[in-house]
Amino acid sequence: MMKIRLPKGFLANGIHCGLKKKRKDLSLFYSVKKCKCVALFTTNVVKAAPLVLAEQVLKKNDKNIQAIIVNSGNANCMTGKRGMTDARKMAKSTAAALNIPEDSVMVSSTGVIGKPMDMKPVVSGISKLARGLSSSGLIQAAEGILTTDRFYKISTRMFPVGGKKVTMVGVAKGAGMIEPNMATMLCYVMTDAAVSQVALRKALKLGNEDSFNSITVDGDMSTNDTVMVLANGEAGNQTIKGSGKDYKAFQQNLEEIMLDLAKMIVRDGEGASKLVKVSVKGAKTTFEARRAARAIADSLLTKCAIHGGDPNWGRVASSVGSSGIKFDPDKMDIILDGVVFFSKARAVCPVPGKLKKVFKNKNVDIEVRLHRGDAEAVMYTCDISKKYITINSFYTT
Amino acid sequence: MMKIRLPKGFLANGIHCGLKKKRKDLSLFYSVKKCKCVALFTTNVVKAAPLVLAEQVLKKNDKNIQAIIVNSGNANCMTGKRGMTDARKMAKSTAAALNIPEDSVMVSSTGVIGKPMDMKPVVSGISKLARGLSSSGLIQAAEGILTTDRFYKISTRMFPVGGKKVTMVGVAKGAGMIEPNMATMLCYVMTDAAVSQVALRKALKLGNEDSFNSITVDGDMSTNDTVMVLANGEAGNQTIKGSGKDYKAFQQNLEEIMLDLAKMIVRDGEGASKLVKVSVKGAKTTFEARRAARAIADSLLTKCAIHGGDPNWGRVASSVGSSGIKFDPDKMDIILDGVVFFSKARAVCPVPGKLKKVFKNKNVDIEVRLHRGDAEAVMYTCDISKKYITINSFYTT
Repeated sequence: MMKIRLPKGFLANGIHCGLKKKRKDLSLFYSVKKCKCVALFTTNVVKAAPLVLAEQVLKKNDKNIQAIIVNSGNANCMTGKRGMTDARKMAKSTAAALNIPEDSVMVSSTGVIGKPMDMKPVVSGISKLARGLSSSGLIQAAEGILTTDRFYKISTRMFPVGGKKVTMVGVAKGAGMIEPNMATMLCYVMTDAAVSQVALRKALKLGNEDSFNSITVDGDMSTNDTVMVLANGEAGNQTIKGSGKDYKAFQQNLEEIMLDLAKMIVRDGEGASKLVKVSVKGAKTTFEARRAARAIADSLLTKCAIHGGDPNWGRVASSVGSSGIKFDPDKMDIILDGVVFFSKARAVCPVPGKLKKVFKNKNVDIEVRLHRGDAEAVMYTCDISKKYITINSFYTT
Repeated sequence: MMKIRLPKGFLANGIHCGLKKKRKDLSLFYSVKKCKCVALFTTNVVKAAPLVLAEQVLKKNDKNIQAIIVNSGNANCMTGKRGMTDARKMAKSTAAALNIPEDSVMVSSTGVIGKPMDMKPVVSGISKLARGLSSSGLIQAAEGILTTDRFYKISTRMFPVGGKKVTMVGVAKGAGMIEPNMATMLCYVMTDAAVSQVALRKALKLGNEDSFNSITVDGDMSTNDTVMVLANGEAGNQTIKGSGKDYKAFQQNLEEIMLDLAKMIVRDGEGASKLVKVSVKGAKTTFEARRAARAIADSLLTKCAIHGGDPNWGRVASSVGSSGIKFDPDKMDIILDGVVFFSKARAVCPVPGKLKKVFKNKNVDIEVRLHRGDAEAVMYTCDISKKYITINSFYTT
């Protein structure tokens, strides 16, 4: 198994505690030093208990976070008062096992909604988890947060900041329920950079827009989405502020990691076999471009067509038409995998040799040009297969 | 084969002309007398040529319509100027065959987008079609408008208006691309009632809201959606105006026919095996209730759960939460097939005997109570199966 270096001062571990039948279901990320922490959560009105708790903790203590405890197999959502008690108990147990204050622990959960947590395996699992923490425990931890994912998702970068080497590592889980404005989608980024809270918040927000907010698997938005960044300053660089060259490098690397992970999530969409890039160009505004791109990416009919290798570009046109934006269909270009299918108000009949290759590769490209302005947007999605139906037809039973 | 009576003065026919391989693909509805005509079309910016033409004709001549010519197998959409020429040619050929003015013919098309119409079989088909018109040709005509539908859709009502017997018959096609604000979804209602244009328009708009605008199959909105009503006055009743007892009877029967057809369309959703009724009650406004109901009905994950007979109510909660409406999740009730799963901020564990029956029947019932007000809304949808993927993966190839 490949070893991936955690940033300085970080340890991790992942184990099977018993929430799931066999696979790992409990992970811990730990920093020996206090971290600056920023996070983004789902905009779903139905929010899981651990998210409510995490928001409370961050409001008061976002410069002193040291641990993230994550379970998979149960979302601890729609679990009422007991859910909050259980989330707090997870924080308390973790704090006790690590000998740190309770309000320096972040809690995350993912899995089935509406089932009370089975706390016994979780509590005893946490002590075991803490004892096994190590600087080479990243992969175990990345495995412990997965649900229906087929593979763990890790992305890492090293870059210099004022002569010091900074390391940044991100892990994520995705699979179903992936949608803009996040997804069940958990992502944790750890870095040893010294960075101000302001810079951290700004970089996360910016990076999120073009990564996790630009992917869609099935249009369903989760109750547990979380993206969190921890920075412990152990690299010894001069603190990165909210602008300048160092900030730029930091922001760019963070965004790259998040985009890496976002693409992995789409590629691992439940039952997916293809990664689809949807670009809308020549829009009047970015909002307009995003709206059109999203309508294309969300179309079930188009996902089916891609799955079957059927260049049914009419569905793309129809999606843009129903996206709510105004445009002149006769001025639209539709280009699939580099082949023009519609342009100048006419369907183009591509030569058969070219046609054969469209929608046939692992990477699919849909481009729409509106010729209305200079704004553009990109969305990533995947095809949909029978396997998606199978996976999601018997999830809780 | 059952014979269904057309309203007085109406004839119909459906044949195979050659746009499709084997199944019927060309239909004609004809009234011996001029009809009042009202119609609703897709709100998609990408509109098929026949819709553009129909809108033009109705603007000038909506009291003198005598025929509707419909082809399936080609949507005549995204076909540029040629598309308009072809749609006009269909009207002209029909007018010639029936010896009526060109601007008394409505044209409809459904099928693949972006392929120029093969006009030869259509033009020669139209003469044959007109020759075969008969008062018992309704089923043939209902078959000719189908695409991937598994069965034709007809609904009929007879009711007295001021001592006269009025007949009303509706035919529709649906299958994929079914979504609120219509669908590819064609629907034609014929009646021998004498009714004013104002009353006709009002009744159609009202009925549409609670029928075709309350169904969703896959969230994709078509370029060709059309609902059209023809009234020829042959029943000899006193003309129905926009209010009063007669109007009420007329409106109610029209709405019933449209709802019948809408439900048939959902039941015949591509690959669907279950009809799902989603009710949201206790909302502050009808808009709010509709928005929540639609979010539930559009959720792919919930459709999968229903397909698998898995009462995954957490997905219902999540959909309402992400629908954009504000509410208190702790006050929400979630009831599936009459069994309470969540109430008073707690998950309810139903007795196994009851649990076994949830999502297992052909008719599925999802009810959400928000306890915020008195408004409510109903949406109809279907489950999603592997067959949907198969049907839509190779549609054009």
